Amino acid sequence: MKLRLIIQLKQGVLDPQGKAINHALHNLSFNEVKDVRVGRVVDLELSEMSVSEAKKKAIEMAQNLLANNVIEDFEVEVLS
Amino acid sequence: MKLRLIIQLKQGVLDPQGKAINHALHNLSFNEVKDVRVGRVVDLELSEMSVSEAKKKAIEMAQNLLANNVIEDFEVEVLS
Repeated sequence: MKLRLIIQLKQGVLDPQGKAINHALHNLSFNEVKDVRVGRVVDLELSEMSVSEAKKKAIEMAQNLLANNVIEDFEVEVLS
Repeated sequence: MKLRLIIQLKQGVLDPQGKAINHALHNLSFNEVKDVRVGRVVDLELSEMSVSEAKKKAIEMAQNLLANNVIEDFEVEVLS
């Protein structure tokens, strides 16, 4: 059972790393870039269980350890 | 045009951060975790262009700046 957690700063939270990448891309002549936001992806491999149970576990893990709920949002995707 | 780049260490490249998270999850009694791999996600907002053109640009950006091709793989997803 593979799941993917995508953790990103909430809308409105300043993202200096994203800003720096935006700037660097413009320096490399990628002038079509309007905005960049950077986050983390955590791929989890869990032992066999139902999809709904696995999702519930992943949400628990994100809330308890992987994401900072004050400034970050997360999404769970099922990979396989 | 919004795209998402998911950048991850190649299979076989040691991921100490993933290992540390795996360990921490086990300490929090998430014993169903078998493996953890950590990566980066970069959400790009580009000016209006065709999907194929945007994808091509995103791949160029990943190759030139965002990913380290020696140790990292990346995927491009179209968000909107």
